[in-house]
Amino acid sequence: MAFESKIRPIYWENGISKMLDQTIIPYEYKYVDITSGQQMFDAIRNMIVRGAPAIGIAGAQGIVLYAQEGVNNFSNIDKFKNWLMEKTDYMATSRPTAVNLMWACEEQKKIIKNSTSNIEGLIKELTEKAIEIEKDDIERCKKIGDYGAEVVPKGATILTHCNAGALATGGYGTALGVVRSAYAKDNTIKVFADETRPRQQGARLTTFELVMDKIPVTLITDGMCSYFMNKGMIDMVVVGADRIAANGDTANKIGTYTVAIAAKYHNIPFYIAAPLSTIDISIKSGKEIPIEERSHEEVTHINGKRICAEGVNIINPGFDVTPHELIAGIITEKGILRPDYNKSIVDVFKG
Amino acid sequence: MAFESKIRPIYWENGISKMLDQTIIPYEYKYVDITSGQQMFDAIRNMIVRGAPAIGIAGAQGIVLYAQEGVNNFSNIDKFKNWLMEKTDYMATSRPTAVNLMWACEEQKKIIKNSTSNIEGLIKELTEKAIEIEKDDIERCKKIGDYGAEVVPKGATILTHCNAGALATGGYGTALGVVRSAYAKDNTIKVFADETRPRQQGARLTTFELVMDKIPVTLITDGMCSYFMNKGMIDMVVVGADRIAANGDTANKIGTYTVAIAAKYHNIPFYIAAPLSTIDISIKSGKEIPIEERSHEEVTHINGKRICAEGVNIINPGFDVTPHELIAGIITEKGILRPDYNKSIVDVFKG
Repeated sequence: MAFESKIRPIYWENGISKMLDQTIIPYEYKYVDITSGQQMFDAIRNMIVRGAPAIGIAGAQGIVLYAQEGVNNFSNIDKFKNWLMEKTDYMATSRPTAVNLMWACEEQKKIIKNSTSNIEGLIKELTEKAIEIEKDDIERCKKIGDYGAEVVPKGATILTHCNAGALATGGYGTALGVVRSAYAKDNTIKVFADETRPRQQGARLTTFELVMDKIPVTLITDGMCSYFMNKGMIDMVVVGADRIAANGDTANKIGTYTVAIAAKYHNIPFYIAAPLSTIDISIKSGKEIPIEERSHEEVTHINGKRICAEGVNIINPGFDVTPHELIAGIITEKGILRPDYNKSIVDVFKG
Repeated sequence: MAFESKIRPIYWENGISKMLDQTIIPYEYKYVDITSGQQMFDAIRNMIVRGAPAIGIAGAQGIVLYAQEGVNNFSNIDKFKNWLMEKTDYMATSRPTAVNLMWACEEQKKIIKNSTSNIEGLIKELTEKAIEIEKDDIERCKKIGDYGAEVVPKGATILTHCNAGALATGGYGTALGVVRSAYAKDNTIKVFADETRPRQQGARLTTFELVMDKIPVTLITDGMCSYFMNKGMIDMVVVGADRIAANGDTANKIGTYTVAIAAKYHNIPFYIAAPLSTIDISIKSGKEIPIEERSHEEVTHINGKRICAEGVNIINPGFDVTPHELIAGIITEKGILRPDYNKSIVDVFKG
């Protein structure tokens, strides 16, 4: 479809990474320069950049930054490669749940391993790969969006959780890619955005990018979804994914599973929108997906101010797993996968 | 049981209402003097006092405050009564969903109507009624707590939503009354408290009163409940109620319905704890319960700071209705009502 988003969260320019600081949206819209590998590692961990596909791009760029730093310390290409492989493994640990990061790091490792160039040549290859991953991601998102738009009913209200938007990807979005492509065909569609506590990506980021792109959006708190479903005000749910197991079980931002249960109860179709790189076929079911535990302050504080009594206990899982039986379809760049996912996932990777 | 809570949110002293300001908890623990009827109306509307049973007490006290104001303007008892009846009807509109407020105002209206005293005598009767409603509420909560404690498994973790605690009642709590009575018998029980956006009563109030009473409490965000249910970390859910229809459908703080659906999906018993005054037998089903729409700022701002983009739409229902089929039992001061509620509710009012 023809929809063009204004938002580009990360891009490579003149040998450094230009990164939109997502921790200060919607208050400020500011790019930061990421110039070293360690700085990229910290930016991913501290969620300056976030969203599974976007941190894949960031990881790939981070390896280029490390390579550029190492260039003066090594004359021997094999020693350089060994050192860079270690740095790549380290970069892959900056966040544990999203598989796209590991995938992007693996892509760079393949180049490091197979390259026959000298150090300068290898850096060039890694740079090209990072740019390619970014460009491909936007193209992939547009395909996801277009496939997804086919199952959006006319005039539908689409509920989404967290931010699987332009800000989470190269610049078009997965779940919000579906919204953008649907909106390009039918400008009567609307979005309901879950706030998505604790980090409020729905409130901060999804409302921001949809308002910026002039797509109507209603912000609701996380507990409200069932109320609006019961009133017939929500026609479908589309969310992103951080990792999808071979059986279709899907890890996504904490709270997604609750929305999926509510959708099931109200017979509302619940879709995942994600590139195939999010599918981890090495993992049989969601039980094996590692869930990141994040800092207690994300729950106890908002904008630096404490919201609860001292002395309270906190557990802060960053993600949950929605079991495949709650998922109507997984919208990918190669079409919509349907149950039985064990079969449709194998087929799509074969095809 | 022997549990004594330290918390008393509202009491009558020397002709005025002493009210704990719940809008500044957990930052400050401060009482305000409510000295006029209009001030009481505003305190209820602005949630200085909140919680269905507590605003019942507040409403009853508010009528006394109006009566005290009127004493100098009237010499004729009938004119005084007519004026006071109007003020009582007005007080009942300060919040629309909780039926306890209407119930308390009706109690005062009965006195106004039936009293044979002069103005001074009528004021005395209304004052006694307000004090009685407060005292009775604490006794009722203790009974609710004791009945509820019988169905709490040993070492259970109880999830609750919003604040149906000492702060929401005369001083012991309904849902948290169950927790207190259970804890008095078994100090290995624990509480999980939903944050309860938008107004965060769970984070601000429930954690505060449980920490104060030294009962272990873990704060979670609203979307997390299913995650912990799935992990087997929650054994039962107990929440309060703002109004219960004759068929058991229950209005409670927005988000409750989502928790009830999640509990059903995981086969975890979901209980309502509420005094019989919360049951509105004039209403057949939850569809007829009016749902308060509250200000957009409750969703868009936290602690005065905006959390989302400008230009977003907001709908802010203060309550939702949990259908009776999701409710394992309604814990009252006369025992636990079980399905079929149409029958058990009629029976308890007969008995």
